[in-house]
Amino acid sequence: MKTIGYAAQAATTPLAPFSFERRELRSNDVAMEVLYCGVCHSDLHTARNDWGWSTYPSVPGHEIVGRVTAVGSGVTRYKPGDSVAVGCMVDSCQKCDQCQKGEEQLCRLGNTQTYNGKDRVTGEPTFGGYAKHLVVREEFVLRVPAGLDPARTGPLLCAGITTYAPLRHWNVGPGTRVGVLGLGGLGHMAVKLAVGLGADVTVLSRRPDKQADALALGAHRLLVSADKDAMKKAKASFDVIIDTVPVKHDVTPYMPLLDIDGTFVIVGQLGPLAEISSMPMVSGRRRITGSLIGGIAQTQELLDFCAAKNILPDCEMIRMDQINEAFERMEKADVRYRFVIDMASLSPAGAG
Amino acid sequence: MKTIGYAAQAATTPLAPFSFERRELRSNDVAMEVLYCGVCHSDLHTARNDWGWSTYPSVPGHEIVGRVTAVGSGVTRYKPGDSVAVGCMVDSCQKCDQCQKGEEQLCRLGNTQTYNGKDRVTGEPTFGGYAKHLVVREEFVLRVPAGLDPARTGPLLCAGITTYAPLRHWNVGPGTRVGVLGLGGLGHMAVKLAVGLGADVTVLSRRPDKQADALALGAHRLLVSADKDAMKKAKASFDVIIDTVPVKHDVTPYMPLLDIDGTFVIVGQLGPLAEISSMPMVSGRRRITGSLIGGIAQTQELLDFCAAKNILPDCEMIRMDQINEAFERMEKADVRYRFVIDMASLSPAGAG
Repeated sequence: MKTIGYAAQAATTPLAPFSFERRELRSNDVAMEVLYCGVCHSDLHTARNDWGWSTYPSVPGHEIVGRVTAVGSGVTRYKPGDSVAVGCMVDSCQKCDQCQKGEEQLCRLGNTQTYNGKDRVTGEPTFGGYAKHLVVREEFVLRVPAGLDPARTGPLLCAGITTYAPLRHWNVGPGTRVGVLGLGGLGHMAVKLAVGLGADVTVLSRRPDKQADALALGAHRLLVSADKDAMKKAKASFDVIIDTVPVKHDVTPYMPLLDIDGTFVIVGQLGPLAEISSMPMVSGRRRITGSLIGGIAQTQELLDFCAAKNILPDCEMIRMDQINEAFERMEKADVRYRFVIDMASLSPAGAG
Repeated sequence: MKTIGYAAQAATTPLAPFSFERRELRSNDVAMEVLYCGVCHSDLHTARNDWGWSTYPSVPGHEIVGRVTAVGSGVTRYKPGDSVAVGCMVDSCQKCDQCQKGEEQLCRLGNTQTYNGKDRVTGEPTFGGYAKHLVVREEFVLRVPAGLDPARTGPLLCAGITTYAPLRHWNVGPGTRVGVLGLGGLGHMAVKLAVGLGADVTVLSRRPDKQADALALGAHRLLVSADKDAMKKAKASFDVIIDTVPVKHDVTPYMPLLDIDGTFVIVGQLGPLAEISSMPMVSGRRRITGSLIGGIAQTQELLDFCAAKNILPDCEMIRMDQINEAFERMEKADVRYRFVIDMASLSPAGAG
């Protein structure tokens, strides 16, 4: 099937209209019209080859919401017209211990990423959701529950599941004392989801002027990390801290905030952290760990949870042709808190 | 009660004979004659004020084995003649959540260290096991089970419990794949205890010539960390790694050895670690944590376990007046694997 999207043709060129083919439906494939696609930092990093593993042309986008247009002969769970979503993965081996227990993101053979990946059948590059159409095998298609606004559902597929998975893994629930570090796309979801799970939620920020934002998102308070007295008073008062800061940084000041057996979860930065001290780990069995998106079943659980609790990301809707400007604004953290592309703005004519 | 021991009078002076008073028995106190005392790296660090918190005179020693000579009026569990032991703590608040669940080492008010601490009643400095006699409240006295050689029991009280506690906390048992980094006092105990618990145990070392030592201790194999091919093959093949290296070092090469959800436990170094990468944590939910000795009930469990399994440290017996030479040899890692002082070598005459 012919479709149109936006692609980077090289690390140094802006995204621009791009015509390409989606594969003919295999028996277990679902075809969808893309209605909305969230804009993730990974999209920008991949388009610009910041991690050094990008291939071109590159069509980013892995916070995808749409409507089923056709299904393969073996598809049982979806039918044309269904409201559906696709996140960061479109395939995995389905056979290893991790896939078997629903942790496809940790597939022993590697999951197939929605973009910048390789199709497991043909080896062809995968293209993401900055496009009019998408074809994905049934097992990696999520159902958008009734009552969840499709226009704001996209960011749940990456920012949402990335923060929901560790909250669930570390048993966050009523009364759990959760800290959230960084208040961007991931951080604002971490706050909303932890509050939704019944936790006592504190936003950690260097800046006192984040107070209003933190409270508006539902957090119970702001802890200003530059305030030494406040930090001292908050010692050993958190069970879980979700660290969404997406650059190299120093976690040392935050570790003593954790109670004995507390957990510090890194979900933002992929790469070096500043030198750490073993002292808070040895003296209180505190731990540092990380988390990577989440499995398909848990992503569906998240969508259902958000529908039931009326939790949605704060989004700014843009047109497809505003994407390069959106990337620039993201780099300056000038978005509250996630851009979403309205794919109706991408016309066949506009694609040239 | 008058007694004699060996003390450092300042950070720069060698240990030398020292006469001092042990307190009169309180109702819940046990008095013991010290028969053996293991020599721990902490003894050396404290005598020399390496951590900056030492007070003088300093009588080190917290791997103490002896025989009860008298008990206070309220003591119910011990009587004169009993074979007993004392480890790194001699008191705690006994009331906080941690004490209540048997984690006295994590007491919210701080445990009272066997030496270089402050008595909770009088505020006087605590003096350790490099001495003829010791007085300790009943709750911090361990029973040396029949069948455990008292001459080799001492090192279980610190090196033993320090490695046993994380093995138990992280559910090491039959089939668990355990790696041990560093083959000194702590490391050699980690190997023996993990083997005793039924685990599959690998010693990790830069040096291929550690193979014979590793196998002699019961390990199933040596993995040479300088061998890049071997390290690559061993990727994701450990559930738990116990890191006993007592200096600043880089844990980065070892993290990918952990399987998904694997745990890296620091028990040696107290202080800075080299810069780490979040990548293995994010991509496989691996975690870095630490551990601090262990609670009293678990220390008793360890002694009983070692008696039942016939597990004992490898010791080199020394006289009390050889302690300064022993410190020098420890600094060169010239001991297999723990010095133990035979306190019979400390005569009243020798104490001057």
